[in-house]
Amino acid sequence: MPHSYAPASPFPADRLAVMLEEIRHHRPLVQCLTNAVVTNFTANSLLALGVSPAMTDIVGESGPFARISGGVLINLGTPTPEQREAMVEAAKACRDAGVPWVLDPVAVGSLPIRTGLARQLLALGPTVVRGNPSEVQALCGGGGGRGTDSTSEPADALDAAKTLIRDHGVQAVAISGEVDLVIGAHLTWRIPHGDELLTRVTGGGCALGAVIAAVCAVTEDAVEAAVAGSTIWELAAESAAARTTGPGSFAVALLDELNAVQPDDLRQRSAVTCAEVTDHE
Amino acid sequence: MPHSYAPASPFPADRLAVMLEEIRHHRPLVQCLTNAVVTNFTANSLLALGVSPAMTDIVGESGPFARISGGVLINLGTPTPEQREAMVEAAKACRDAGVPWVLDPVAVGSLPIRTGLARQLLALGPTVVRGNPSEVQALCGGGGGRGTDSTSEPADALDAAKTLIRDHGVQAVAISGEVDLVIGAHLTWRIPHGDELLTRVTGGGCALGAVIAAVCAVTEDAVEAAVAGSTIWELAAESAAARTTGPGSFAVALLDELNAVQPDDLRQRSAVTCAEVTDHE
Amino acid sequence: MPHSYAPASPFPADRLAVMLEEIRHHRPLVQCLTNAVVTNFTANSLLALGVSPAMTDIVGESGPFARISGGVLINLGTPTPEQREAMVEAAKACRDAGVPWVLDPVAVGSLPIRTGLARQLLALGPTVVRGNPSEVQALCGGGGGRGTDSTSEPADALDAAKTLIRDHGVQAVAISGEVDLVIGAHLTWRIPHGDELLTRVTGGGCALGAVIAAVCAVTEDAVEAAVAGSTIWELAAESAAARTTGPGSFAVALLDELNAVQPDDLRQRSAVTCAEVTDHE
Repeated sequence: MPHSYAPASPFPADRLAVMLEEIRHHRPLVQCLTNAVVTNFTANSLLALGVSPAMTDIVGESGPFARISGGVLINLGTPTPEQREAMVEAAKACRDAGVPWVLDPVAVGSLPIRTGLARQLLALGPTVVRGNPSEVQALCGGGGGRGTDSTSEPADALDAAKTLIRDHGVQAVAISGEVDLVIGAHLTWRIPHGDELLTRVTGGGCALGAVIAAVCAVTEDAVEAAVAGSTIWELAAESAAARTTGPGSFAVALLDELNAVQPDDLRQRSAVTCAEVTDHE
Repeated sequence: MPHSYAPASPFPADRLAVMLEEIRHHRPLVQCLTNAVVTNFTANSLLALGVSPAMTDIVGESGPFARISGGVLINLGTPTPEQREAMVEAAKACRDAGVPWVLDPVAVGSLPIRTGLARQLLALGPTVVRGNPSEVQALCGGGGGRGTDSTSEPADALDAAKTLIRDHGVQAVAISGEVDLVIGAHLTWRIPHGDELLTRVTGGGCALGAVIAAVCAVTEDAVEAAVAGSTIWELAAESAAARTTGPGSFAVALLDELNAVQPDDLRQRSAVTCAEVTDHE
Repeated sequence: MPHSYAPASPFPADRLAVMLEEIRHHRPLVQCLTNAVVTNFTANSLLALGVSPAMTDIVGESGPFARISGGVLINLGTPTPEQREAMVEAAKACRDAGVPWVLDPVAVGSLPIRTGLARQLLALGPTVVRGNPSEVQALCGGGGGRGTDSTSEPADALDAAKTLIRDHGVQAVAISGEVDLVIGAHLTWRIPHGDELLTRVTGGGCALGAVIAAVCAVTEDAVEAAVAGSTIWELAAESAAARTTGPGSFAVALLDELNAVQPDDLRQRSAVTCAEVTDHE
């Protein structure tokens, strides 16, 4: 991004709109190696948005498929031995073929198997890390949360996010909270969208990781992809929450709104601003 | 329960209301090792109710997670080898750490692998057993049903339930049917709630097991937990059925109603009565 | 079918109506060994239609269960090693016990593990093959599509379908597209129903395979079963699409419509016609 931003500068809404146009136009193939709880909701979220999902997570297939994918999500929610091996296979294929991939370190820190796996995957160079504050902190060696519940706020994980970028080659870190943050090498963005109902539906965060992977397929700027993916997802959630009263009907409406959201909605409704400019020594 | 009950005595509705208040207040962590078909619906049911679900069922993680959970569900619907080992690990952790757990012996009796596993788990002392009549009978060595279809009525499984309590240390048995029964060491309760549409949605019984595990996290009385869990679930189902016309919209409405149900609904609408007082020699 | 048909002859709508009556009346047990993404939606689709689903896919149980099932679906969407072994076990049991089964070769051709598995299963004699054009072509050795996206039209796969019937003993091939085709030994049927929204929900094709397996349980004519299953499914989809505006609410409405569809709907609305009569040397 060639612009010069200062704290409180708005993220260019037109870029968000273009990202949505691009994923609808190119309909990228997005491979998801994700947890058993949310695989259906994740696939349906991508289909609703206009993306082509593939949930290929078998050893011997996950690597070849990653090579032909536009973006890949690796989510550690329920990592069986078979899936763990397939995840490493996919991440290596992404690295070798230059395919962008998103790591979602679900419940890392509080549980041993996935914590080891997350470190192994981190060494393979994820393009984006997406998680709640506790998970982002734990990926850097801090303590974890309570299952999938975070015990920290996004701002608490800023240092961990910067460490992931500086020391591990991650290009963008998306931290979910009441206000989401997206951290890049130079700028941190504040995304003041979404709805509390997103926390009352399983996969509200996991599917966002897949949406970010989809945007990564149409831009080389991972920060832009993480901001656009988060904003599209959360504006759709706002629209869904505006016309539903409970988590069941909200989840259904969210899929409808992912289908209905238009580039102009992003131009008119997005309110993403720069939260911080990182000084460079 | 210190009260003295006779057949037809009502279950104290205020206790049901308090159970709902407690789970909403404490938001217990409930671990579910459950079948692949219903994992999403189960997690969403718990989230809708105000409980924190975790579907951790990996060997090496299921035990540690069980130790920090408020209640655990072990459901045998699709028991892969990995999951079978993780279930035994979780059940042992529950036993050692004093965490209450619910065993749902899906399709036990008619299928060999899970029947052996169910016996092994029964020896580890489940707090509550929840199933249809055929499954409860099969867990005691009787014949099984037809897949997940029961070929018996709840009353047919009363003797089997009492055997589970007397000989295997189970504290409560919840048997589903047109009218559910909850059997304890001294009393059997009749829960005349629910709707036929619950049988037209996969997981209508499986998710109830998770709800009972959630209530177990806030009371030491397993019979109270099973009665409260069943009543909350089935009153929500009645509300959902009252405003829907098919199984798809019913399942969505059920999640909304689990979110909407209030303690006063239990005080005003519950009609649980004592079905039987067991004589003690 | 004793009738003599010519191109453009209508498929007898009364037979479709009778098939629906029969599955509602007999409520067959349908075993599904299917992918992790759609297992919930598939089970709910069968329950909504009035069929009894069982998702038994464990080694040591899949064979015994297949023997007591009315029809079996084997869908290769996410074939773990455990499931692959269980699929072969189930297919052998079907062959030995004379139980009809449907093979859905998801993404075969583009991915190596499932392609080998599909060939192995084909040798065990599936009653019906259901897939998109690319999958049907790949099962005969042609190239595959892009993940679950087909890169061909149904007519392009006609030769492959005829090869499956002539050389592999398959009795019917159902090819999905804007207009579905069902190919038998003598006749090819054209099913001009369905809605584009079916492609915006994961499992729109996978669950149809389970519905065809259900109809196979009540008729010995596999072509009739494939035509009836496809027509029931797609008329329900048309009804659902007529009253919804997005993929989330469409999927919910589809389950409601599977519950609501009546034999008279098939008599009045079905427009299946003969597309081709195969000459026999």
